[in-house]
Amino acid sequence: MMQRSLDPENWEDFRKDAHSMLDDIIGYIERVAERPVWQPIPEEIRARFREPLPQEPESLGSVHERFMNEILPHSVGNVHPGFMGWVHGGGTPVGMLAEMLAAGLNANLGGRDQIPLEVERQVLSWTRQLFGFPDSASGIFVTGTSMANFISILAARFSILGEEARMHGIGGRKLAAYASSSAHVSISRALDFAGIGSDALRKVPVNRDFEMDVDALRHAIEADRREGFTPFFVAATAGTVDTGAIDPLPEIAEIASGEGVWFHVDGACGALGMLSPEISPKLSGIELADSIAFDFHKWGQVPYDAGFVLVKDGELHRQAFASGASYLSRGRALSAGSPWPCDFGPDLSRGFRALKAWFTIRVHGSRKIGQSIAHTCELARHLVQRIEESDRLELLAPCPLNIVCFRYRCNNPDPVNLEIVARLQETGIAAPSTARIEGKLAIRAAIVNHRTRIEDIDRMVDAVLSIGKNIHE
Amino acid sequence: MMQRSLDPENWEDFRKDAHSMLDDIIGYIERVAERPVWQPIPEEIRARFREPLPQEPESLGSVHERFMNEILPHSVGNVHPGFMGWVHGGGTPVGMLAEMLAAGLNANLGGRDQIPLEVERQVLSWTRQLFGFPDSASGIFVTGTSMANFISILAARFSILGEEARMHGIGGRKLAAYASSSAHVSISRALDFAGIGSDALRKVPVNRDFEMDVDALRHAIEADRREGFTPFFVAATAGTVDTGAIDPLPEIAEIASGEGVWFHVDGACGALGMLSPEISPKLSGIELADSIAFDFHKWGQVPYDAGFVLVKDGELHRQAFASGASYLSRGRALSAGSPWPCDFGPDLSRGFRALKAWFTIRVHGSRKIGQSIAHTCELARHLVQRIEESDRLELLAPCPLNIVCFRYRCNNPDPVNLEIVARLQETGIAAPSTARIEGKLAIRAAIVNHRTRIEDIDRMVDAVLSIGKNIHE
Repeated sequence: MMQRSLDPENWEDFRKDAHSMLDDIIGYIERVAERPVWQPIPEEIRARFREPLPQEPESLGSVHERFMNEILPHSVGNVHPGFMGWVHGGGTPVGMLAEMLAAGLNANLGGRDQIPLEVERQVLSWTRQLFGFPDSASGIFVTGTSMANFISILAARFSILGEEARMHGIGGRKLAAYASSSAHVSISRALDFAGIGSDALRKVPVNRDFEMDVDALRHAIEADRREGFTPFFVAATAGTVDTGAIDPLPEIAEIASGEGVWFHVDGACGALGMLSPEISPKLSGIELADSIAFDFHKWGQVPYDAGFVLVKDGELHRQAFASGASYLSRGRALSAGSPWPCDFGPDLSRGFRALKAWFTIRVHGSRKIGQSIAHTCELARHLVQRIEESDRLELLAPCPLNIVCFRYRCNNPDPVNLEIVARLQETGIAAPSTARIEGKLAIRAAIVNHRTRIEDIDRMVDAVLSIGKNIHE
Repeated sequence: MMQRSLDPENWEDFRKDAHSMLDDIIGYIERVAERPVWQPIPEEIRARFREPLPQEPESLGSVHERFMNEILPHSVGNVHPGFMGWVHGGGTPVGMLAEMLAAGLNANLGGRDQIPLEVERQVLSWTRQLFGFPDSASGIFVTGTSMANFISILAARFSILGEEARMHGIGGRKLAAYASSSAHVSISRALDFAGIGSDALRKVPVNRDFEMDVDALRHAIEADRREGFTPFFVAATAGTVDTGAIDPLPEIAEIASGEGVWFHVDGACGALGMLSPEISPKLSGIELADSIAFDFHKWGQVPYDAGFVLVKDGELHRQAFASGASYLSRGRALSAGSPWPCDFGPDLSRGFRALKAWFTIRVHGSRKIGQSIAHTCELARHLVQRIEESDRLELLAPCPLNIVCFRYRCNNPDPVNLEIVARLQETGIAAPSTARIEGKLAIRAAIVNHRTRIEDIDRMVDAVLSIGKNIHE
């Protein structure tokens, strides 16, 4: 019987290729600032990814060359210090190495008795400590906050409808959920996925700082009760994606507690501010949450993807997801160590996301990561100052954290600012994105990357002014 | 303003550490067969993962040492040729390097105009070709088949209830879904998550080969219609997790088509058999599916996690998931290239899973991967032969693919066979798992790893016989 292993026939040759690949990718990170942030993709490059399924082998070196020449130069560019689009972390070389080790170990963290699960539980216990949650709180890694929000909604659904709904579905129950009008779309999507329907989400108005109006929340809950709805879930946002606004967490917690409603915090953009002593006071009240969703791959700089969901009542969380199956029976040896992560969320096949978070936190230490987070806020304040100093620029929203929304002042500002953002990206100078702020098109600079320097901010501002002038004349 | 980058202060020192980490993990894979498959975890090792959040930095070398000494020796061991538990792939060194590059690039594949998305679309087009799906079919990478099954159920739900249910929820609708009694638990869980309820799943009886009884399926659908239920989803399994049985796909397709019911194939364990000309005839009819869920990290040997969902009607798939949001408005430059993967599933933050699949397929070629898949089936037949040759062993189910369920013959066989599996794992000789086959506890050997050799099978059989004899005497 022939051997059919996919391992290299010659390990020495393989090692040579591997080390050269490692050097190339380290070189990319080390010198990324010399590249354009992003560049338009030539159609001929795009067309090279429309080939039939390759039957025959190709050398590792040759495939790597394609990676270096065709893929790497045409990625989004969020490793680059000039990237300020959407809310993307920059990654770290340490996180990359951890991901390499995780892929070599090839662990599946659905379950079984293995130290990789203890690594995940270690990171869980660090997040408990960070957010002031009890030892009985549960949590798992997921792809991102979209999935973490979904899991939180299912836990909240279980808290009000119990096993009955798991077995028989939502039925005709009239449930209502609440989040501010600035909340992330993943909340209403999660209600859709969960069979509750996106219309169950009441979009509570915000105040002038884009924070949830708590009186409006109170009235919305009252109105729903009068109409026969059962309020079951309120999501506060800790760092909205458009402006970085933090909803008044203690007040929302009090209302939720008084009403017997699940209190969730969507902390995708802001929750890890807890790592910084300067920012954590703004997040006061987060410890009162029933669940928190956040991403290590944003402010935590862990490579994509590394979302996390933390649930205060670990036993309820388990009951909301656990199920039995003959081949998953737990016992001795490899089958020990129950409960497993698959008892706390939908995934049975789960990569070793915990390792890259564990390495990142251990190697850098929480203090230094917190400093890099605080630094992005400092850079945002510098950007605000540059905007306020220029009569051509206009700030469109307050900047409580690291996200700045502004525009170039001119007639017909929407298309002009859209054009400015497109040209910034196309020239590769900087990559902010856009947002709509009270109907106005804003240039949105989300400063998330630990590599971003004051000169990257200045370069972007100078380019906005020069492109704006150019278009305007 | 101080710089706060988390990049290394000294890149040369960092490179040295990085290369030594790479050497260590390559060495692990190269010499994994010399290790025990798995080993029990000493309590003192476990206890080292219960530390408070580290505030201060630690050297990369020291953290790596902890990885080598405390984590790597106590992983599940599915890289090892003697691992036959559950259904785990073995990973490849090539896949590991691709994951390293993906982590360095740190791409988020939720959207934007970037070549990484073209890589994902390239893999999608290969899967279309493999399964005989049209160019209009859509698909995305997900964590695993659990998520792929969930997405398929949401697409099927949309096909019957439309936008109405996305907005207003399931309401009082009586939906019914079908899968064989051998189907994976993730199907009923997905119905629970989707608000339909796990009881909506009719578990259709199986024949003596553990394949769905199609007459029983027909009767179940008729009975539901009489009771006022709306049949909307039938999941055939291509390779059940317990025995590798393949449901009669063409017959189920015909029933589904006649009844206007969505035809899904859960191909977690078996679908990639399409890569082998010897196995693909058994999967005939898979091209008729409305959706297919499968895992590149099982038979495809791509490192965890790398699930995939393929949907025949790409436009319906998009409508079942897409939603608008101001900051996600699509346009020019980075905002071009719509539709994006986030329009086809719940994830907005998505790592670059496609790269490790793309590298694996390009470097090895589809033919060689198919041969390694066929080889695992050949090894399974060898195991069946060894079982049939021994009067102490008994085969508990047919073996159509790569999964063998058997037991040691003796009085009181359940606890004895449970003990045999635990001892096999604890001695590190081999790691099969257990399954319940018609109430009997079976030793289940799922031969998935491309590294597994005939001597690994023989070693496991010899150990079963010797441990059995030992316990029995």
